[in-house]
Amino acid sequence: MNKKKILVINGPNLNLLGLREPSIYGRKTYTELEDYVNQCAHALGLDAVLFQSNHEGVIVDRIQAALGEVDGIVINPAAYTHTSIAILDALKAVGLPAVEVHLSDPEQREPFRRVSYTALACERRFVGCGFEGYRLALEYLNERLSGRKA
Amino acid sequence: MNKKKILVINGPNLNLLGLREPSIYGRKTYTELEDYVNQCAHALGLDAVLFQSNHEGVIVDRIQAALGEVDGIVINPAAYTHTSIAILDALKAVGLPAVEVHLSDPEQREPFRRVSYTALACERRFVGCGFEGYRLALEYLNERLSGRKA
Amino acid sequence: MNKKKILVINGPNLNLLGLREPSIYGRKTYTELEDYVNQCAHALGLDAVLFQSNHEGVIVDRIQAALGEVDGIVINPAAYTHTSIAILDALKAVGLPAVEVHLSDPEQREPFRRVSYTALACERRFVGCGFEGYRLALEYLNERLSGRKA
Amino acid sequence: MNKKKILVINGPNLNLLGLREPSIYGRKTYTELEDYVNQCAHALGLDAVLFQSNHEGVIVDRIQAALGEVDGIVINPAAYTHTSIAILDALKAVGLPAVEVHLSDPEQREPFRRVSYTALACERRFVGCGFEGYRLALEYLNERLSGRKA
Amino acid sequence: MNKKKILVINGPNLNLLGLREPSIYGRKTYTELEDYVNQCAHALGLDAVLFQSNHEGVIVDRIQAALGEVDGIVINPAAYTHTSIAILDALKAVGLPAVEVHLSDPEQREPFRRVSYTALACERRFVGCGFEGYRLALEYLNERLSGRKA
Amino acid sequence: MNKKKILVINGPNLNLLGLREPSIYGRKTYTELEDYVNQCAHALGLDAVLFQSNHEGVIVDRIQAALGEVDGIVINPAAYTHTSIAILDALKAVGLPAVEVHLSDPEQREPFRRVSYTALACERRFVGCGFEGYRLALEYLNERLSGRKA
Amino acid sequence: MNKKKILVINGPNLNLLGLREPSIYGRKTYTELEDYVNQCAHALGLDAVLFQSNHEGVIVDRIQAALGEVDGIVINPAAYTHTSIAILDALKAVGLPAVEVHLSDPEQREPFRRVSYTALACERRFVGCGFEGYRLALEYLNERLSGRKA
Amino acid sequence: MNKKKILVINGPNLNLLGLREPSIYGRKTYTELEDYVNQCAHALGLDAVLFQSNHEGVIVDRIQAALGEVDGIVINPAAYTHTSIAILDALKAVGLPAVEVHLSDPEQREPFRRVSYTALACERRFVGCGFEGYRLALEYLNERLSGRKA
Amino acid sequence: MNKKKILVINGPNLNLLGLREPSIYGRKTYTELEDYVNQCAHALGLDAVLFQSNHEGVIVDRIQAALGEVDGIVINPAAYTHTSIAILDALKAVGLPAVEVHLSDPEQREPFRRVSYTALACERRFVGCGFEGYRLALEYLNERLSGRKA
Amino acid sequence: MNKKKILVINGPNLNLLGLREPSIYGRKTYTELEDYVNQCAHALGLDAVLFQSNHEGVIVDRIQAALGEVDGIVINPAAYTHTSIAILDALKAVGLPAVEVHLSDPEQREPFRRVSYTALACERRFVGCGFEGYRLALEYLNERLSGRKA
Amino acid sequence: MNKKKILVINGPNLNLLGLREPSIYGRKTYTELEDYVNQCAHALGLDAVLFQSNHEGVIVDRIQAALGEVDGIVINPAAYTHTSIAILDALKAVGLPAVEVHLSDPEQREPFRRVSYTALACERRFVGCGFEGYRLALEYLNERLSGRKA
Amino acid sequence: MNKKKILVINGPNLNLLGLREPSIYGRKTYTELEDYVNQCAHALGLDAVLFQSNHEGVIVDRIQAALGEVDGIVINPAAYTHTSIAILDALKAVGLPAVEVHLSDPEQREPFRRVSYTALACERRFVGCGFEGYRLALEYLNERLSGRKA
Repeated sequence: MNKKKILVINGPNLNLLGLREPSIYGRKTYTELEDYVNQCAHALGLDAVLFQSNHEGVIVDRIQAALGEVDGIVINPAAYTHTSIAILDALKAVGLPAVEVHLSDPEQREPFRRVSYTALACERRFVGCGFEGYRLALEYLNERLSGRKA
Repeated sequence: MNKKKILVINGPNLNLLGLREPSIYGRKTYTELEDYVNQCAHALGLDAVLFQSNHEGVIVDRIQAALGEVDGIVINPAAYTHTSIAILDALKAVGLPAVEVHLSDPEQREPFRRVSYTALACERRFVGCGFEGYRLALEYLNERLSGRKA
Repeated sequence: MNKKKILVINGPNLNLLGLREPSIYGRKTYTELEDYVNQCAHALGLDAVLFQSNHEGVIVDRIQAALGEVDGIVINPAAYTHTSIAILDALKAVGLPAVEVHLSDPEQREPFRRVSYTALACERRFVGCGFEGYRLALEYLNERLSGRKA
Repeated sequence: MNKKKILVINGPNLNLLGLREPSIYGRKTYTELEDYVNQCAHALGLDAVLFQSNHEGVIVDRIQAALGEVDGIVINPAAYTHTSIAILDALKAVGLPAVEVHLSDPEQREPFRRVSYTALACERRFVGCGFEGYRLALEYLNERLSGRKA
Repeated sequence: MNKKKILVINGPNLNLLGLREPSIYGRKTYTELEDYVNQCAHALGLDAVLFQSNHEGVIVDRIQAALGEVDGIVINPAAYTHTSIAILDALKAVGLPAVEVHLSDPEQREPFRRVSYTALACERRFVGCGFEGYRLALEYLNERLSGRKA
Repeated sequence: MNKKKILVINGPNLNLLGLREPSIYGRKTYTELEDYVNQCAHALGLDAVLFQSNHEGVIVDRIQAALGEVDGIVINPAAYTHTSIAILDALKAVGLPAVEVHLSDPEQREPFRRVSYTALACERRFVGCGFEGYRLALEYLNERLSGRKA
Repeated sequence: MNKKKILVINGPNLNLLGLREPSIYGRKTYTELEDYVNQCAHALGLDAVLFQSNHEGVIVDRIQAALGEVDGIVINPAAYTHTSIAILDALKAVGLPAVEVHLSDPEQREPFRRVSYTALACERRFVGCGFEGYRLALEYLNERLSGRKA
Repeated sequence: MNKKKILVINGPNLNLLGLREPSIYGRKTYTELEDYVNQCAHALGLDAVLFQSNHEGVIVDRIQAALGEVDGIVINPAAYTHTSIAILDALKAVGLPAVEVHLSDPEQREPFRRVSYTALACERRFVGCGFEGYRLALEYLNERLSGRKA
Repeated sequence: MNKKKILVINGPNLNLLGLREPSIYGRKTYTELEDYVNQCAHALGLDAVLFQSNHEGVIVDRIQAALGEVDGIVINPAAYTHTSIAILDALKAVGLPAVEVHLSDPEQREPFRRVSYTALACERRFVGCGFEGYRLALEYLNERLSGRKA
Repeated sequence: MNKKKILVINGPNLNLLGLREPSIYGRKTYTELEDYVNQCAHALGLDAVLFQSNHEGVIVDRIQAALGEVDGIVINPAAYTHTSIAILDALKAVGLPAVEVHLSDPEQREPFRRVSYTALACERRFVGCGFEGYRLALEYLNERLSGRKA
Repeated sequence: MNKKKILVINGPNLNLLGLREPSIYGRKTYTELEDYVNQCAHALGLDAVLFQSNHEGVIVDRIQAALGEVDGIVINPAAYTHTSIAILDALKAVGLPAVEVHLSDPEQREPFRRVSYTALACERRFVGCGFEGYRLALEYLNERLSGRKA
Repeated sequence: MNKKKILVINGPNLNLLGLREPSIYGRKTYTELEDYVNQCAHALGLDAVLFQSNHEGVIVDRIQAALGEVDGIVINPAAYTHTSIAILDALKAVGLPAVEVHLSDPEQREPFRRVSYTALACERRFVGCGFEGYRLALEYLNERLSGRKA
């Protein structure tokens, strides 16, 4: 039987992880995040496809390309969480089960980070849990895709 | 005498037409839309230049390049309708007569789809008319460019 | 001693300067702006790196690349002033001293131009001063970087 | 087989069409609109019943009388779009498939024209398309009533 | 001694009772409501004058005509509850004790049904009690007119 | 030379003048208002056509009928001031110079009386001046129609 | 066959009934209310379990304890109507059919009494009907539990 | 002649006085507050009944029990100032003269501390005066109860 | 060396876990949650003190009693998250490091669940992670108390 | 018998009358206004004391000095209408009957001219009537002071 | 050792104290307030410099002149509390410790009295305490200046 | 040929320049600003008339006196920017070309500094440029008055 494939998208500035405002995001780098996600996926018998971009349009393209290629999407849209209706529409268009992740809690930051367009196309959100949010998201999709979750 | 040339821009996710939420957008594909627009343009003696992109910046570039190349613009900015001031500024900068088209009626969807920045640089909007909105837009520009409309 | 290097970013549609709404932006072109900025930098003993893009993501990339390359940033984000949290996050991530410039006064235009995300990561804003805003920004950074300003 | 019958209601001041603010509504008269609607209906094999009134209560009466008499309703409620909950309730009470039409785009006028009560009881809205909005509405109802549309 | 006379006004679309949205209004018809009100009035020794109209102006006329003719008013203004200042002014002008009745609870429907102009001229409101609201209103006026209530 | 003709419209409940809330509207009756308006018109060499109705639709009809019949309109729309876009549209459609009059000052009453749709189609408003507001309105129109006022 | 059992909860300060603001709540005492409710229940063949508390937490406890013990809930949450999400959550948690009752009409009091959290877990609200609201609530639940109402 | 009796209620967390955020509340303990209030009462010939609770419902019970037992109420509702309509209703129900006291000035803290429900049932508020607010409140009630104040 | 002690507070209705809206909260019971928390604490070498109450005042009392008894607090305030300033004040008064946990994501429910008073006294929030949120909270406090986290 | 004395205050910039925005204020000068007011006062047997100042504080001083000197106040506070609570307080402090006058209609200008603090201390407002507003104000005060008006 | 000097500023209309709205401000006159303040200052070993003006600009001048002359400021800005940013800026400019006093509680008056600009430059506010507020303010400054308060 | 004369007005507290909040306004004094403005004017062949006042009314007087005396106005209204409609009206009344200057950027301070009444009567605003804002304003007026600018 084939492994389930999950596209894991990271949005703008997450490639600077570890450099950027460590009091908020911690000191681990983007490469460490990639390793962590791959290990979690492996442990669950999933295949993780990692992707990072600072471009809204490129993320839209990537989501569109996921149709027929992957079984679910984990997305940390970073700043685009709050401004991109195009990413929301892309997620709705492909119709794959999707989960939103945030390393820190946007509720505890500026008011304009309270809006989440992306959340409108996601089945779950994991917020404030650091790297573990990605594991929780993969676990959720794993159960969801094997029919153990509604 | 030369044919008038109209740039017809379609924004993010419209390339997925027919796949995406058929209850809202119908079952016809983007290729069918291209054919429909070309036929309408031909019937009116116009030359339609079709363009689609999921990237805000690429659409801004395309509008800028239209200056001196085309006589008018038809634009369905999709999600960027509600978030892009850059596209608004590009339309105002080139100063070509422009018309906004929406396949379905954004008024009947989420509240955040009620804002239209693009409309501020457009002479007309055709809303909720499906593919025919494009024909109405072309007809309007045809009359407008031949001086029959103010 | 090496010259200080300042990245000067101009956002969407500023490449059309001189063409676009001269009653608001004046009649000088983008090339003239580039010359003006280079002269000011030279007079101050600074090295100006000019950059223009219509793409939000490309501007984010450029700001990230500035880390370790330049000593400060002057940015006129144009339309992205009001819509881009991604550029704000990029400026905060690289942590370089930054200054926002606007040729005209957005306060005297549409209400949606009153919001400035970028300003939240900038130490000063120079508004309404035309080309001179860039000189004031360079002067400010020059004093700031030589420790004469807090 | 009997022809399908469609009630076409025009609200206050539409009887002055052609006289009233031609920059917004065009120069064609209400009689020309009646002819146009009848021709479209005929072409589609439909029977159009035209009705115009300046009175909210009279329009409510007319909608109520439509029950058991017609198969669908096209309504351009004009000013009552924005103020009449009674017409909304009447449309919901009779439960016939209904479509809202606006000659011009209320979004591009005063803010108080952005509210549409009537739309809450209509399946589609055709906005900004002039006379053609009526044809699109008849076509939609034709397909809807023959079961070709959900 | 003469019987007290109460005008019982029913606003737009209430004549369709039993036909209209039974999940909200129940299955009893307007004729059944008339019978019910007459029986309640009879039981209380009151004379009920029933009146229904879909026209705001006709309701205003009727309220004005009540001056010197009846001793109190029960009104279910239906949709005009939320939009008619003219009916409010008429009630205040005639100065008769008035009571507002709603079959269902407008609080549990759309937000625009939360406003009640009419209530500003009514001593009591009976909400959500179905037909019994009319009896409660008649009982209240009966006690009020015989001086047993302030 | 023919006398100028002015249509003087009084809205809902003004026929009850003198009966209704004398602390706000004074003790003079509607007949006294008619006499007063006729005398003022006579003194100015104008011909006043008086009209009162409680029906929004009837007032719209009357304004439409004024086209080609009178030279100007004085209107006290009473409650419809705040709720009728249809009357606003009628005034704009006929395009006659119009003046709004209020006996008392709606600013000093409930907040919902602060909105005036009608004012958007009127050149002047006379507020709080009692009967004299009508004279001031007639004087204004007299000067306006004889070209002494812009 | 066993009688249906209904828990009737009265919130804070209702134990002072008859003492408290008689112009709003009338002059009957809480004991009279208890008698009235018991009589109504008896007449309907129901068993009423009365309960009053001034403590939000105690009311939550009581609702939880109702699970498996009663067949429905009538609740007059008084001040907690407007402030207690905990009571709302308790009602939703036990999932019993519930009805909200208010002696007087909170709409005609301070604006902060317009919010009702509890209503979000209730099938009906009876407002402004005094003691009779409890009878109407019991009648509703009686029909609902015997399957005569949806 | 009997001494007047005043109930002095302190709300949640005031028992921690002296421990809690001394920069806001000072360093004196709740016991010191009790002593201070008793001394002030004694000096005025009043009898102070002190009461503290962290429970909204317990405070409501205590206020109800005050009826017929005390002559006036001083209350520092602390956090319940801003959230408890039940305490407001209790104060209104017993109808005793009441005064609200706050040690520090809630206006200079978070915005959600600007609302005061309790104040709606209090004749005076003493704000920001520390312990002396209690003395001022007792003095006010002393004069008020001896008829020297309206 | 002594074990660190953590107070784990669960707010109203969480004792019904597993019974209550499983589509939101999952099917595991409160007893299973207790076991899970104890196991996590044990694995981390911590001592967990579990506490549940439906009473705001009881939770305030419990937090106060924690002073000098435990080293940190994990709190899932459930409904009181959104309404209790008293709990917020208690957390601030005792000044212990605190963490907020929510099983599901309140952002994806009713708007009134978006406010969190408690969060203002917490260093972290773990949202949407189910039982694992408690583990993350314990891990965070463990590192925080051993000085490995700021 | 002594003449009644009325203080007539004109606020900032009214001394420029005739110079200033004639499309709004007409072409008559402040001296002409003084003459007009004096003539109206004379005709009514009143004594008008005219006063103009551009200083808020000077107007407050003048109102205070009016106590015991005049019988009523007519005030056109111009810009201070919308910004001065000090003038409002002065009017309330002296307690003389006061009337507010505006030459033009502030409702038809910028939104910030809709607020009137002064109106809160005035018995009537005459708006939009030009110089005649002063006569209407004097007439009102004349009747008011002779006891013919409440 | 020299006495500390405190400037005590009273804003507009406070010179009318005792005349003005005694139900709000009490019956004592401004002279009595001056005596009271001088006595309190004397008792504390302070030197009070009293000043009253109705002019915003004069108060700004006086605050500026205080620099180098006095050691602290007590200010009751009366109406200017809510409208004067200039007084706020003056207080911030001179940087002296300042305290705001209000005789009565502006929270219990009109909503526009809820804003306090002055408070932003004051360390404490004493509200609703009548004359005693001045004593409390002097006591606070006395302790503050002798280093006994932070 | 005569020199053009420019009135340069500085509002409240600007006379304290250099003393006041140097982190915002810099360390240069008002005298240095006067010298700077005079030098700039001289260099441009203009005659600068400098004026400073803390009094709103005095500034209004000064603007009025400028009519017929100067050719343009530069104004830094400081705190009156945000509160004075009287200064706005004075600027509009004299109708001279005017420019607003702010040393620092009010956008980056408290929200109440975002409103600018004065800006509504100014052709340009120079914001955040320190002393240079005055030079830019003089340059703008110089070009404007010599017809080189619209």
